[in-house]
Amino acid sequence: MDSFLIAFQAQVLYDFTAEPGNNELTVREGETVTITNQSIGGGWIEAQNSKGQVGLVPEDYIEVRFSDSDTADVLQHTQYFISNNYNNNISSLCVLQASNGNDPWSVWNADSSGGFNNNWASNPEGTPADPWGSLDEWDDEWDDMKSTGGYAESESGESGAIQRGGTSMKISLNKFPGFSKSGPELYLLCKQLPKEKEKLTIYMGEVGPVWSYPDTQLDCVVADPKKGSKMYGLKSYIEYQITASTTNRPVNHRYKHFDWLYERLLDKFGSAIPIPSLPDKQVTGRFEEEFIKMRMERLQGWMTRMCRHPIISSSEVFQLFLTYKDEKDWKTGKRKAEKDETVGVMIFSTIEPEAPDLDPLDVEKKCEQFSRFTKAMDDSVKEILTVGQEHWKRCTGPLPKEYQRIGKAFQNMSTVFTSSGYQGESTLTDALTAAGKTYEEIAQLVAEQPKKDLHFLMETNNEYKGLLGCFPDTIAVHKAAIEKVKEGDKLVGTNKITAQEKGTMAKRLSTMSYALQAEMNHFHNNRIYDYNRVMQLYLEEQVTFYETIAAKLRQAHSQFTTM
Amino acid sequence: MDSFLIAFQAQVLYDFTAEPGNNELTVREGETVTITNQSIGGGWIEAQNSKGQVGLVPEDYIEVRFSDSDTADVLQHTQYFISNNYNNNISSLCVLQASNGNDPWSVWNADSSGGFNNNWASNPEGTPADPWGSLDEWDDEWDDMKSTGGYAESESGESGAIQRGGTSMKISLNKFPGFSKSGPELYLLCKQLPKEKEKLTIYMGEVGPVWSYPDTQLDCVVADPKKGSKMYGLKSYIEYQITASTTNRPVNHRYKHFDWLYERLLDKFGSAIPIPSLPDKQVTGRFEEEFIKMRMERLQGWMTRMCRHPIISSSEVFQLFLTYKDEKDWKTGKRKAEKDETVGVMIFSTIEPEAPDLDPLDVEKKCEQFSRFTKAMDDSVKEILTVGQEHWKRCTGPLPKEYQRIGKAFQNMSTVFTSSGYQGESTLTDALTAAGKTYEEIAQLVAEQPKKDLHFLMETNNEYKGLLGCFPDTIAVHKAAIEKVKEGDKLVGTNKITAQEKGTMAKRLSTMSYALQAEMNHFHNNRIYDYNRVMQLYLEEQVTFYETIAAKLRQAHSQFTTM
Repeated sequence: MDSFLIAFQAQVLYDFTAEPGNNELTVREGETVTITNQSIGGGWIEAQNSKGQVGLVPEDYIEVRFSDSDTADVLQHTQYFISNNYNNNISSLCVLQASNGNDPWSVWNADSSGGFNNNWASNPEGTPADPWGSLDEWDDEWDDMKSTGGYAESESGESGAIQRGGTSMKISLNKFPGFSKSGPELYLLCKQLPKEKEKLTIYMGEVGPVWSYPDTQLDCVVADPKKGSKMYGLKSYIEYQITASTTNRPVNHRYKHFDWLYERLLDKFGSAIPIPSLPDKQVTGRFEEEFIKMRMERLQGWMTRMCRHPIISSSEVFQLFLTYKDEKDWKTGKRKAEKDETVGVMIFSTIEPEAPDLDPLDVEKKCEQFSRFTKAMDDSVKEILTVGQEHWKRCTGPLPKEYQRIGKAFQNMSTVFTSSGYQGESTLTDALTAAGKTYEEIAQLVAEQPKKDLHFLMETNNEYKGLLGCFPDTIAVHKAAIEKVKEGDKLVGTNKITAQEKGTMAKRLSTMSYALQAEMNHFHNNRIYDYNRVMQLYLEEQVTFYETIAAKLRQAHSQFTTM
Repeated sequence: MDSFLIAFQAQVLYDFTAEPGNNELTVREGETVTITNQSIGGGWIEAQNSKGQVGLVPEDYIEVRFSDSDTADVLQHTQYFISNNYNNNISSLCVLQASNGNDPWSVWNADSSGGFNNNWASNPEGTPADPWGSLDEWDDEWDDMKSTGGYAESESGESGAIQRGGTSMKISLNKFPGFSKSGPELYLLCKQLPKEKEKLTIYMGEVGPVWSYPDTQLDCVVADPKKGSKMYGLKSYIEYQITASTTNRPVNHRYKHFDWLYERLLDKFGSAIPIPSLPDKQVTGRFEEEFIKMRMERLQGWMTRMCRHPIISSSEVFQLFLTYKDEKDWKTGKRKAEKDETVGVMIFSTIEPEAPDLDPLDVEKKCEQFSRFTKAMDDSVKEILTVGQEHWKRCTGPLPKEYQRIGKAFQNMSTVFTSSGYQGESTLTDALTAAGKTYEEIAQLVAEQPKKDLHFLMETNNEYKGLLGCFPDTIAVHKAAIEKVKEGDKLVGTNKITAQEKGTMAKRLSTMSYALQAEMNHFHNNRIYDYNRVMQLYLEEQVTFYETIAAKLRQAHSQFTTM
C-alpha cells in the first residue's frame, strides 16, 4: 500500500480540539485540510491545515472530497486502500500497545477482508446461482443514503460507506476510539476503579472459568424487511422487524441502527469480548430481493450470536435495542449509551472472578495457548472457505453444464433412433429420452445444491472467520497487560509505581485472564455446537442430494430392456 | 493434406505387372521408386521408377524407407498423413464410382480416426486412471515386429504399422484391392454369374428383408493372452486363446491373424456388409498389462459382433479362424481363403432374396434413408463420445482432487479442534475426522467410477463409430449401382447394353437393395439390443455409485450431535 500515496483534500466535519502534547491538530467544522499520512493507525490520520500546521486528527472527523470526474478513477484504489488500511490500523494499534508486540497474525493483514466482508462466493461469470455480487457493488444507492457532509446526528452508523452516486467519501474506519486511546495501563494502574452498579461475575465451571449464564437463553427473530423512505421519497431504506423471545413484541431497526449497536458493543466490551463485525455492506445481491434476504439472514446470524452471549445479551444497550418501547425511549437510551464511560479496558473493572488470583506466568501461558488456537482455527476456517468457494464454482458452473450436455446427447440419440424407420424402436427411444431428461434434472440438482448445504457451511465458517478476526485485538490487550506486569519490578525500582500498585496490577491481570478464559470457554462451547450443527445440516442435505439422484437414475434405468 | 508433399523413396516389395491401358507401372521386387502422388486413392499410389516412367502401383506393394535420423521428424507427419489419407482413399474411391457421387460424409474425412483408432479417452496429463496412452505410442516394439522388408509370407496383417524401433514404414492402407478394382458394374453387367455352392438367402421378416439367422447364435471367448517369441527370443508377440461356443476347443491367434481375418472378411463381404475395423494399434496402455487387457477386451467385442452376424459367422473363413484343427489345417484354409474369387461386389451374386423384385425408385429411396440415418447416428455417437470424454477427464481429474481437498479441510479442522484444550471436544473431532475421510473416499469413488460405467458406454459408442464409418463405403456402392441402372435407357440407346441386360441390371440392383435392407435390419436389431444393454449397465452402476456415496455420508452424519 506504500505505493498509494495520493494527497487527499479533506473537509473537516466536526470541531476537534487537540490535546496538548499529543501531536494532535485542532480543526474546525468546514475547514479544508490535506491528509499527509494515512497510515498512522488507531483511528488517527495526519493532516495539514491551511497554515501549514501538521498534526493528528480523528479519521471520523474528516471527509475526503473528490470532484465528480476523479471519483470513478480513484474509487477503486481507495476502496482497496480502505479495506487494507482498516486492518493495518487495528494491527498497528495492537503493536503499539503491546510493548513486545510482534505483528499478531500477519496473514490477516495481507487479507483485505476483516470480518464479514470477504466475498467468498463471488463468481466472475455471475451465474444466477451466485447470491453474492462483485466487490464494487454497494447498496447505498437505495439504502441509507446520506447527503454530502450531512451528519445531523452524531450517529456513527454507515461508517466506511462510499457513495457511488455522489461525490463524497467519508473515511471513518476506526470503530473504537475509546479502545484506541487507552492501553491496558488505564485499567491496570487506575488509582480508584469506578463503582459499577452491575458486576460481571465469573464462576469456576467444569471446563474452567465461565461467565454467568442466564437461566433462559435470549433469542430473537429478524424478519419482515420493509422498504421505508424519507426526504419525501427521495431516499429509501430497509427496516427490519426484530422480535425478542422475552417480549415477543417486534421493534423496527434499520441497518444503521445495527451498526450503531455494534459500535456501542465494541466500545464497551471489545477489550474483553470479540465483537464480530456486522454483515458487510459489500455483500450485495444481484437483485434487491436477494440482497435483502442475504443481509437479513446475516443480521439474524449476528443477532443470534449476540443473544447467545451472556454478557452482551444482558447488557443495557443490547436490551434497549431489542425492547425499546417507543421512539422517545429509544432516543433517551441511545444518548445514555453513548455517554457510557465504562468502555475499552475499563470493562475489566466490572468483572469479578469468584476464584483465587492467577500467577502472571499462568496467565501468559493461557494467553499464548488461546493465541495459537485461534490462529490455527483461523487458518483452518480459511482453508474450508477457499475449498468451499472452489466447490461452489464447480457445482454452479462447469459440472451442471456437463450433465446438461450428457442429457442432451442422450436425447439427441433418441431423436436419431426415432428416425430409423425400424419397428420396435419406441421402448428404447422413450427410455433414452427419459435418461436424457434425468441428466438434465441432475444438472439442475447439482447447480441448486450449494444453496441448500454448502451455503450454510460457508456462512458458519464465514461468521467464524469474522469472529476469529477479532481475537488478535482482544489477545493483544492481554499481551500488553502481561508485559506491563512483567515490567512491574523495574517500575517499582524506578519509583514509577509503588509495590502496592504492582500487586494491584498482578491482581487485575488475573481478572483480565479470567475474563479471557471465560470468553474462550464461551467460544469453545458455541463452536462445538455450531460445527456439530452445520455439519449435520450439510451432510443431511448431501445425503438427500445423492439419494435423490440415485432414485431418479433408478427410475431411468427401469425403462431400458434387453428381453 | 495438400501441403504435405514430401517425395518419398519407396522400395518395391513384390512384383507387379501393369495392366495395359490402366496407367499402371510395372515394378519388380527390390526396385526403388519415388512416390510422385499419394492422393490417387483406391489403394493406388503414383510412382516413378529409375527410368523416369510414371504410373500407378498398388500401395500394398511398396514400402517407404527413412534413414534413422529422418524417422523421428517425419514420423509424426506421416502418421497424420496416413490416417487422413486412408479415409481420403476410400472416399475418393466412392466418389469415383458413384457417377453422381458427392463427397459422402465429408465430416469423416476431416476426422482422422476411421474405425477404432480414435483416442477418445486420451488424457494429456496421463493420470493412472487413463487406460489409453497418447497417439504416438505403438505396441510394435514388442508385439509382431517385422524385419525391414521381411515379408516371407504374403500375409497382409500388420498393415499400416509403423516400426518405431526400426527404419521402415509400410504404406499399406487400401484394405480391399478387390473392392477397389471393381465398381458395381462388374456385378450388374456380368454376363454369366459364377455358380456358387452356398447361397445367402434373404427372407421377408416382420421388419422387412432379413438375413437367414442360424438357430443357435455363435459365440466365442477371447482369453488367456500369452506372450510368445520368435527369432530366438528377439521378437515377442501376444497370442490369444479363442474358444467358439460350438466346439468349446480353444485355438490360438496373434493380432496379425485377426488382421488377416479382417482383410478376408472385408474383401469378401465389404460391399454388402460393413466390416468394422479391428481395435486399433494406436490404442495402447501405459503398461503392457493394461494394453493387453484393453486390446483383448476390444478383440472380444469385435469377435462377438462378427459371431452375431449370420452371414459372417457362418462363412468358411470365419469358421476356419475359430475352429481350425491344427497348423496344417490353418495354412490350407488360409491359402484357400486367399484364393476366393467371390469378393467385392461379386458377393451379391450369391444372394438370393425370396421376394419380388424392387422398383429402382424404391431402391433409391431406401438407400437415401439409410444414408441419412447412419450419418445422423454417426453425429450422435460422436457427440456422446465427446461429452463422455470430457466427463471422464473431469471425473478422474479436478473433481476427485476437490473432494480430496474438502476431506483434508475437515480433517485439518479436526486436528485444530483437538488442540483446543477444551473438554468434551472428542465427539466433534472424531466426527469431523470421519467426515473428512468420507470425502476422501468419495474422491476415490469418483475417480474410479468412469472405469465402471462410462468405460462401457464409451466402448460401445466407439464400436458404433467404427461400424458407422463403414457405411459410407457400403452405401456408395449402392448409389453407384443406382446411377448405373438409371443410365440404363441411355446405354441401350447407344447400344452399349441390350434391353435384356438392362432388365438384368434392375433385377440385380433389387438383389443389392434386399441385401442392404437385410443388413440395415440386422444393424437396427443389434443397435437396439446394444444400446439398451449399455444404458442399463451404465445407469445401474451410476445408481450404485450415488447410493454408495449417500450411505457413506449418512454414516458420517450420524456421528455429529447437538444434544
